[in-house]
Amino acid sequence: MEEVKTIQWNNEKLILLDQTKIPNEVVYEAFEKVEDVWDAIQDMKVRGAPAIGVTAAYGLYIGIREEGEEDKNAFFKALEEKSRYLGTSRPTAVNLFWALERMENKAKELKDLTIKEIKEKLLEEAILIHKEDEEINRRIGENLLTLLKDGMGVLTHCNAGALATTKYGTALAPFYLAKEKGWDIKVYADETRPRLQGASLTAFELYHAGVDVTLITDNMAAMVMSQGKVQAAIVGCDRIAANGDTANKIGTLGVSILAKHYNIPLYIAAPTPTIDLRTPTGEGIPIEERDAEEITCRFGVLTAPKGVKTYNPGFDVTPHENITAIVTEKGIVYPPFEENLKKLFEQE
Amino acid sequence: MEEVKTIQWNNEKLILLDQTKIPNEVVYEAFEKVEDVWDAIQDMKVRGAPAIGVTAAYGLYIGIREEGEEDKNAFFKALEEKSRYLGTSRPTAVNLFWALERMENKAKELKDLTIKEIKEKLLEEAILIHKEDEEINRRIGENLLTLLKDGMGVLTHCNAGALATTKYGTALAPFYLAKEKGWDIKVYADETRPRLQGASLTAFELYHAGVDVTLITDNMAAMVMSQGKVQAAIVGCDRIAANGDTANKIGTLGVSILAKHYNIPLYIAAPTPTIDLRTPTGEGIPIEERDAEEITCRFGVLTAPKGVKTYNPGFDVTPHENITAIVTEKGIVYPPFEENLKKLFEQE
Repeated sequence: MEEVKTIQWNNEKLILLDQTKIPNEVVYEAFEKVEDVWDAIQDMKVRGAPAIGVTAAYGLYIGIREEGEEDKNAFFKALEEKSRYLGTSRPTAVNLFWALERMENKAKELKDLTIKEIKEKLLEEAILIHKEDEEINRRIGENLLTLLKDGMGVLTHCNAGALATTKYGTALAPFYLAKEKGWDIKVYADETRPRLQGASLTAFELYHAGVDVTLITDNMAAMVMSQGKVQAAIVGCDRIAANGDTANKIGTLGVSILAKHYNIPLYIAAPTPTIDLRTPTGEGIPIEERDAEEITCRFGVLTAPKGVKTYNPGFDVTPHENITAIVTEKGIVYPPFEENLKKLFEQE
Repeated sequence: MEEVKTIQWNNEKLILLDQTKIPNEVVYEAFEKVEDVWDAIQDMKVRGAPAIGVTAAYGLYIGIREEGEEDKNAFFKALEEKSRYLGTSRPTAVNLFWALERMENKAKELKDLTIKEIKEKLLEEAILIHKEDEEINRRIGENLLTLLKDGMGVLTHCNAGALATTKYGTALAPFYLAKEKGWDIKVYADETRPRLQGASLTAFELYHAGVDVTLITDNMAAMVMSQGKVQAAIVGCDRIAANGDTANKIGTLGVSILAKHYNIPLYIAAPTPTIDLRTPTGEGIPIEERDAEEITCRFGVLTAPKGVKTYNPGFDVTPHENITAIVTEKGIVYPPFEENLKKLFEQE
């Protein structure tokens, strides 16, 4: 058992944990061609917004590192082409475009250097994007850790972990850091139906890292809380409105109500880009509804009568009054969120 | 689509819905030999305490109907042997022994009749046990129906339905009766991990009966409630303590807290034998912990890392203060439960 590494750059190769093989196998694959990186993103060997962004940045470097070093116009044309090409691997992933654009902008800034130098700087930029993601997660983890104590039990839902980022994750970051400190934190991971990210990702990565993790079904969270097994709940988020209302994986709303009922604090792990001050409340956050098959036939086995109606919202919105604190890389935000989230950005 | 029939007695044959084939196929099987009835119980072609009891009663009649009609001692010996034999088909099912004992006692009462007459009376007794179960369920359903209104949405958890009984079920009974009345009740069925009884049993039987049922994962109940889609929640129960604390399938506690949060009434459908006045509170109800594989490998597919720790309680206890009413075949019991449950039995 050892901590899995989502993304590594090693000896001029991009090395990814093949996430299509987990939780059954731990397989690392090395990538040296841009086409293979494209496939890796498309086939979801790598997933999670930050991880896709970092992979694309390395992929773009891989794509141009063998370009000729004489003709600068040809080089920039190739850079743009490879960037556009990588952008087609998973077009709904915003971080993908953000990372590719940042790489292209870097190259444009440095257009007066030699092509060889520009290539070197592009690799440095990809490594920087990678390190920045790690650093944000580490800071969120450190901030969350100030809210925990050695010996505590903590519930988490879905996967806001290392597998979706480059290291640590957001909601799972304090568990890795606690482990590094020698603390004994007992994590209870909701399996998170219908797609089971809690079972196949969260339980997987914490188990391999040697964190004390116990997998439960979503409907056991109330019992775990009632028995005093957890003293905090920590979840990630997809989008936070200006008033603190938080959209996250379906089931988070239920966790928030149970936690409130049992007087257990609920912390949202939130990199600042997920805070959307232009959306006043949770009502403005659209909720995608997903395929019935996720519920009725998740495992290649029909577990419900064929044709039965389902309701399958992918996310829910937790009202701000159920949230104890929003924990970002820049600090911990307490209620009143409307006022204090604004202040967080005014610090800049 | 038509309502499935768990147990039928027709033309001297016992006809069971083969519950090992649902939710994918609707197959009825006829039984004419006691050995095949034994297999049906053992293989869980029929399941649920009341349904097993009724099956065993018919099975015992089937077992003795071809006995010789001259030697009464030999007949009673055969009756006892077949009864003991059927008792080994699923020895933890209390209703199995209750029904077999009732059949044997009936025969003893009538020992002065001819063997032919005793055989006829035993078939009548099996049919009576069958009808009594239907009648109890119908009364629970009628009582629950007085708490509902045409057009309502109702959430249910696990399966307290026709498939576990002979007809109607307990918690699902009002939905069948509402359908008979032409009411439009929208049922939301929690899938009920880990064993998915909500998906494979509740959604199955209601869908086939033409009831408007929508299948959701357990962690969607909070969202369904928050959106005003349901105005009541109805669940069955395994045991009710003297103070009203109710043990039921894992996840019921969570449903009760969510319902309370959203001011939605929670009704427990409870045949009076599930009320256990000798157990003062829920703390006295033992909770079985079940195999990890139910969570990690329910579908023949490993959905979590091999070896990960799980916590898998089969039941939880809903404290009486989260329960709006306990609905029995004898009437509706409101708080204070300690006082009013006692009165229910004093009426007798």
